[in-house]
Amino acid sequence: MANRLDTFRQDQDNDGLFDVISSDFLHTIRLSIDSQNIQKLKEHLLPLEAPDLGLLLEQLDSDERITVIDTIRPDFDYDTLLYLSEHVQSEIIDYLGIDRLARHLAELDSDDAFTLIDELPSEQQSEILTKISASQRASYEKILSYPEDSAARLMQQEFVAVPSFWKVGDVLKFIQKSKGMPDEFYEVYVVDPKHHVVGVIPNSLLLKTKTEGAIREIMKTDFKSISANLDQEEVAYLFRHYDLVSAPVLDESGRVIGMITSDDVVDVIEEEAEKDILQMARVSETDYNAPFYVTSYQRIGWLVVTLINALLGAVVIQHYHTTIEQKGALAALMTIVAAMGASNGMQVIAVTMRAISTRIIHSGNIWKPIGKEALVGLMNAFVFSIILSLIVVFWFKEPALVWILVISFTFNMIWASFGGVLMTYAIEKMGFDSAVSAGPLLTATTDVLGFACFLGLATLVL
Amino acid sequence: MANRLDTFRQDQDNDGLFDVISSDFLHTIRLSIDSQNIQKLKEHLLPLEAPDLGLLLEQLDSDERITVIDTIRPDFDYDTLLYLSEHVQSEIIDYLGIDRLARHLAELDSDDAFTLIDELPSEQQSEILTKISASQRASYEKILSYPEDSAARLMQQEFVAVPSFWKVGDVLKFIQKSKGMPDEFYEVYVVDPKHHVVGVIPNSLLLKTKTEGAIREIMKTDFKSISANLDQEEVAYLFRHYDLVSAPVLDESGRVIGMITSDDVVDVIEEEAEKDILQMARVSETDYNAPFYVTSYQRIGWLVVTLINALLGAVVIQHYHTTIEQKGALAALMTIVAAMGASNGMQVIAVTMRAISTRIIHSGNIWKPIGKEALVGLMNAFVFSIILSLIVVFWFKEPALVWILVISFTFNMIWASFGGVLMTYAIEKMGFDSAVSAGPLLTATTDVLGFACFLGLATLVL
Repeated sequence: MANRLDTFRQDQDNDGLFDVISSDFLHTIRLSIDSQNIQKLKEHLLPLEAPDLGLLLEQLDSDERITVIDTIRPDFDYDTLLYLSEHVQSEIIDYLGIDRLARHLAELDSDDAFTLIDELPSEQQSEILTKISASQRASYEKILSYPEDSAARLMQQEFVAVPSFWKVGDVLKFIQKSKGMPDEFYEVYVVDPKHHVVGVIPNSLLLKTKTEGAIREIMKTDFKSISANLDQEEVAYLFRHYDLVSAPVLDESGRVIGMITSDDVVDVIEEEAEKDILQMARVSETDYNAPFYVTSYQRIGWLVVTLINALLGAVVIQHYHTTIEQKGALAALMTIVAAMGASNGMQVIAVTMRAISTRIIHSGNIWKPIGKEALVGLMNAFVFSIILSLIVVFWFKEPALVWILVISFTFNMIWASFGGVLMTYAIEKMGFDSAVSAGPLLTATTDVLGFACFLGLATLVL
Repeated sequence: MANRLDTFRQDQDNDGLFDVISSDFLHTIRLSIDSQNIQKLKEHLLPLEAPDLGLLLEQLDSDERITVIDTIRPDFDYDTLLYLSEHVQSEIIDYLGIDRLARHLAELDSDDAFTLIDELPSEQQSEILTKISASQRASYEKILSYPEDSAARLMQQEFVAVPSFWKVGDVLKFIQKSKGMPDEFYEVYVVDPKHHVVGVIPNSLLLKTKTEGAIREIMKTDFKSISANLDQEEVAYLFRHYDLVSAPVLDESGRVIGMITSDDVVDVIEEEAEKDILQMARVSETDYNAPFYVTSYQRIGWLVVTLINALLGAVVIQHYHTTIEQKGALAALMTIVAAMGASNGMQVIAVTMRAISTRIIHSGNIWKPIGKEALVGLMNAFVFSIILSLIVVFWFKEPALVWILVISFTFNMIWASFGGVLMTYAIEKMGFDSAVSAGPLLTATTDVLGFACFLGLATLVL
């Protein structure tokens, strides 16, 4: 498997997406499982790297997963657990047992081991903490003292630190002789006797410098360091903004206690992007392998929000039901006013969210985007008023309907633009997540205002 | 600036987001610009790194940007251009002039220089190609021969390649003596005489090995390499899936021609996530500094799609206008059926999109998610049918309305679940982007079906 796909080419798959686990491979595995051909199964499974084995397990059914685990149990790479969704992960940990997990935790990097322990249910968590070594336990408990989603939870505690009076040759000797070096590292930290970082040397710079070179002279002093309690979203922002590959993590007194590398940050960026996308679609969690009733339960919360939104609109419409009973066409046109307002509002919210997260909008210049969006809303209200007027005139042949529609439509569009920026900014400023709440809040207002304004005007005029 | 913010802490800013350009700093810069205090302005600007200067320029007005550029012109770091949005970037390139840009291009990494040339309008592009050196031009033209958004466009052409018969000491000497080494690199490629990569040595492994160590013995042979024509989204997937920090890029004959590093990939992941989020909110582009009429124009396309959606629904409603004129309450309740169907559909689309992009759903198992989602839809239709029945009974006191609502609501929910998976998968399979089209297509059907089913039943029953 690993060899077959070593070089990744565009044309390997007809729909343009790589299936690192191809349908054919999955089929072969399933055949071996069904035919109990354990030897064959082993041959297919053993060359798989942890991420690929993880993906394979996700795609199998529960009993097939157990067969796979049984087949490769003595050689099972515990890193695989890091690549599983919550449901499959806990299924496999339950099957392997906490004892076995505890024994193999030490094989993992400290950040990965911590992630695994952190994801366990609390009973299993306390159980595993009694079974690992005292030093491992102490280091977990230290990280646990930092807030969830903080830099400390992302970092690994293994890093390379050297004093500033050394030469490059001393650093090389140190790296070659020490035990407990991290598997991979991208830079070496230069520290003073208090373990404060005074400089950073990228590995490539170490390689470029002769062994006689003095650390103090080659180290970079304009490096970025990260406080252990910094939120992971901010860590991701800094890595992106400054194109970092690795950064030292400091505790409250400024001592270096760990290292964050870009692969951890890529996961955070991916997670945060997934969260934003799901929240815009009003999904709180996605776990493909969870049973249907769990998924159903997880979706209900947001559907209740939609229902409340829809009911608010329905109450407004029902208030004007006698007007609608005089003219059924109003029922058709009112939905256009509401839909366009909501769509305009969602556009403004998405753009404002992005501008806030890339730091282009902040408290110093919030009136500028509000002004701009109000102008955009006005402009588009004008364009679509013309289109809508033409449609309604030809369709219903009643000029009064056109005026009612255009006025309520324009009003709703401008409110959506203005309210979109203001609500998104206010929600972020209050420390909430605008991806979650700005959409439903604004849509509720554009629905209610759209219906009320259109039907209210109609009641007055018709 | 750089020194002040060296360590990033959580509590530096009250709304929890880092302003690497704080409001205070922006205010200070603006004061210096207004008071023509060029000396002071220079003192503030010169310590800024390229990403920070870029962000500052984004936040200033057009004439302020010109003053800033004038103030630091001799020391202007051309890397800054990479951190600008399209509108601001072209404004500044126009102001600096193509001549000056051509002279400074060689200071950039080849991938960054290429990105800049690639983003220029076509007249400026051909102009700049006449002004750079022949070797630079040849290398750009080679990259231009690869498709847009391919791995070749992401890679830098500088990398370190060594023969397999060397020892670690030979590699170190080579790196220390050669000119044209990349600024930063994370691994060294071991190549055969045909320039095929036979192994990869991470820098940290080079540092860990004594100078007498043979390359052939320490190199990793289970590395991942990337074909030059691979799409950048696939590159991002592979970096994420295998936790890569760097990978060699191969041409059609398998020769290594470049290197992709994780900072480039982080930008791609961020771009793709931004694209998905914007497309779900029906925004095609976001350029905060574009004039309002450009933004207005960019938003119109998607609003037209919303309008067509809404008009389809309106046509259905109008078809039943006599039924609505008999009972205005129908106008209120029909919006609930449509809203809930649309919301359920968006949830299913978002979850399916994620499962496809993480390779959990593919052609081999597409019926499993369809079955699961249909069950989830049925379950939630049941739950909300009960809630809605109670509300409608107490509100309107008409049992007939309850039955009409429950039947059309259940039908719409199940269609949304089933159609959500199927449409998303079919759109991806046909090679289109489901983030763009699945939402509008499905919403059109849930609106039309919801209205038609509810009003049609009402016409029959009432």
